[in-house]
Amino acid sequence: MTLAEKIMSKKMGREVVAGETVEVDVDIAMTHDGTTPLTVKTFEKIANKVWNPDKIVIVFDHNVPANTAKAANMQVITRNFVNEQGIKNYYKGGEGICHQLLPENGHVLPNTIITGGDSHTCTHGAFGAFATGFGATDMGYIYAMGKTWLKVPETIRIEVSGVNERIFGKDIILKTCKEIGRSGATYMALEYGGNAVKNLDMDDRMTMSNMAIEMGGKTGLIEADDTTYNYLARAGVNESKIAELKKERLTSDYYNSNLENDSYYDVVEFDITDMEEQVACPHHPDNVTDVSNIKGLEIDQVFIGSCTNGKINDLRIAAKYLKNSKVHRNVRLIIIPASKTIFNQALNEGLIQTFIDAGAMICTPGCGPCLGAHQGVLGDGEVALSTTNRNFKGRMGNLNSDVYLSSPAIAAMSAIKGYITNEH
Amino acid sequence: MTLAEKIMSKKMGREVVAGETVEVDVDIAMTHDGTTPLTVKTFEKIANKVWNPDKIVIVFDHNVPANTAKAANMQVITRNFVNEQGIKNYYKGGEGICHQLLPENGHVLPNTIITGGDSHTCTHGAFGAFATGFGATDMGYIYAMGKTWLKVPETIRIEVSGVNERIFGKDIILKTCKEIGRSGATYMALEYGGNAVKNLDMDDRMTMSNMAIEMGGKTGLIEADDTTYNYLARAGVNESKIAELKKERLTSDYYNSNLENDSYYDVVEFDITDMEEQVACPHHPDNVTDVSNIKGLEIDQVFIGSCTNGKINDLRIAAKYLKNSKVHRNVRLIIIPASKTIFNQALNEGLIQTFIDAGAMICTPGCGPCLGAHQGVLGDGEVALSTTNRNFKGRMGNLNSDVYLSSPAIAAMSAIKGYITNEH
Repeated sequence: MTLAEKIMSKKMGREVVAGETVEVDVDIAMTHDGTTPLTVKTFEKIANKVWNPDKIVIVFDHNVPANTAKAANMQVITRNFVNEQGIKNYYKGGEGICHQLLPENGHVLPNTIITGGDSHTCTHGAFGAFATGFGATDMGYIYAMGKTWLKVPETIRIEVSGVNERIFGKDIILKTCKEIGRSGATYMALEYGGNAVKNLDMDDRMTMSNMAIEMGGKTGLIEADDTTYNYLARAGVNESKIAELKKERLTSDYYNSNLENDSYYDVVEFDITDMEEQVACPHHPDNVTDVSNIKGLEIDQVFIGSCTNGKINDLRIAAKYLKNSKVHRNVRLIIIPASKTIFNQALNEGLIQTFIDAGAMICTPGCGPCLGAHQGVLGDGEVALSTTNRNFKGRMGNLNSDVYLSSPAIAAMSAIKGYITNEH
Repeated sequence: MTLAEKIMSKKMGREVVAGETVEVDVDIAMTHDGTTPLTVKTFEKIANKVWNPDKIVIVFDHNVPANTAKAANMQVITRNFVNEQGIKNYYKGGEGICHQLLPENGHVLPNTIITGGDSHTCTHGAFGAFATGFGATDMGYIYAMGKTWLKVPETIRIEVSGVNERIFGKDIILKTCKEIGRSGATYMALEYGGNAVKNLDMDDRMTMSNMAIEMGGKTGLIEADDTTYNYLARAGVNESKIAELKKERLTSDYYNSNLENDSYYDVVEFDITDMEEQVACPHHPDNVTDVSNIKGLEIDQVFIGSCTNGKINDLRIAAKYLKNSKVHRNVRLIIIPASKTIFNQALNEGLIQTFIDAGAMICTPGCGPCLGAHQGVLGDGEVALSTTNRNFKGRMGNLNSDVYLSSPAIAAMSAIKGYITNEH
């Protein structure tokens, strides 16, 4: 069985396989400032009280601080809902991005069902949770009932081997996007494994799971292991709970299955040992190439941050290159830690100082320019290199601009040189 | 003679008095991301090369990082102009607010003429410079010719006495706004003096000069003294230049004149010894009251920053109250240092850590929410307490919101309590 099937089976208390539609109890439901108002609208048609205020997490991250009166008014609606419903897991802005705050605060556990009013909720698959994004209508129903329907998905196994210190989770997932294509995993689970994935820390695993949706994936799963449990301990999950999770650990049967195993729709294998750093070119995350193919392309803006690459390891890598260097005169570098906790870590490690000295702009933890709402919209004809997950046409707020995607390492080196490069 | 008349006379090399219109050589001309594009449009009708690229300062501060494609495109126009004209004093974003960067980088000297494409250019009057704001058409002419016409203004003397450690420059200038009224000083110079002004450091003096325009004032002048010269030394102005400035020091004849002296249109005197902290109520900076009259008014957002109160002393005062305290659950606190240098100082003194711990959102140095463009727009019916200079209806981006103005001390105490207060 696949990891997706095992999680679902455990949840249902009986064996379920790909293709079956089930109604499941939701463990954690999340919406943000962008999706809560519509969720509330649906919710109010069917209920007065949420099913369980302690299982709901509401985060202000998309437009913080509010960039328009419209955004501010959506936040007013959301705040009223939070107060009316007594939702304690409420992050009022500046604490960070929802997909970072959930694991950081211990809301994400292996084998759970996590539903979010945001497409990148699949991020939490990195913890072996079945985590996926929903529209506001579905989220309204979940807020009322605590349940949702899900089709148990087929699975594509991504088996990555090899060792290469220049290659990060972001390079691996960009390569995966290239192999699978933008709709190659529609309503499927991606299951990431192999020694190259095992070797990644949680930050890089989350980067990989985060981008499952860029291939149409329902979620992007990684088996829980000691790396996972150690992260949970740091996130405040208590010892007995972790011991219980270890006992109930679920693993995929991939290594015991043969390729004819029906559970696996497909298997994609690659080795990173000789792999070059990867860059996604406009206007889709599957339009991926080796960095050497576009080296020298001049850039106007670099963004290091987002739920994909705004984590402490991402900032450490960026700081490694930016230390004692200056951002190129023609480039604006925007760096936004994915959470306040990361901001604090970066502050204590001197990374914020490094970024400021290099000439970067630091903004309050949140989504920043990723979705083109504010904090780094591009001008006509401008080119950005971004550590985010999407480079759709107009994604960063201007249809007449180009966005390239890379790891923080490539982004930092390029910010200094003024063009896309893997040289420092 | 008034200080304004003396500066103008020195500049013209002959005695000029209030009422006379003169053409003067400009020492420093400044525009920002909001006003440069229109300035360039005018400039290009009359010239190809700016009169002196080293006397021009261009700062990106109003919309950084760019919040819309329109703002980004205005920045593209500005960047092209900077590159074409070889303007070295160019701050590409994140370095800070123009009115802070000019003095901080030694561009502001006593007895000079400083023209800026921003109404708060009068800030530099705190250094005994004749500094005033112009529209973009005038700035285009200045960029081409290095000259402008000015009517030598009449002067209102603001004579402030007394000692009161609870009273800051902001309280004094709010009280002044109340006394003079919103158009009581139209096209006049305000001349601030008295022991209470002498006792202020440059940060607080700049706060006072900054708000001269809120009374219609052309500029807000303070005689240069040792406080001024010490600031200049820290800003990198060389010793011999400072020695020269000391020798050429200009002082007003206020204490030698009688009240019938034609130069002084009016004199306003007050004593701060028993004065309460001042707050400006919606919707004008002259609608000022003692804090006790509105104590208890609930607030949704607090902003500490801007060219008025984003300086290091402002942040130190805010940190004094926020240390070991938490921002009230119902309040968003946004803090934005007025420059990268101030951000760095705040970082090194642990103030940034204090703000983060208290639950504040920190944004990249710039104008922030002051003008309602982004980074803290208010929702319908919301109330903000802000350390900025203007609370016009809709100023912070929403016509259906109320903005109150105060010092950083009142702002910080109120952010913690959730309502306007002068208690900690």
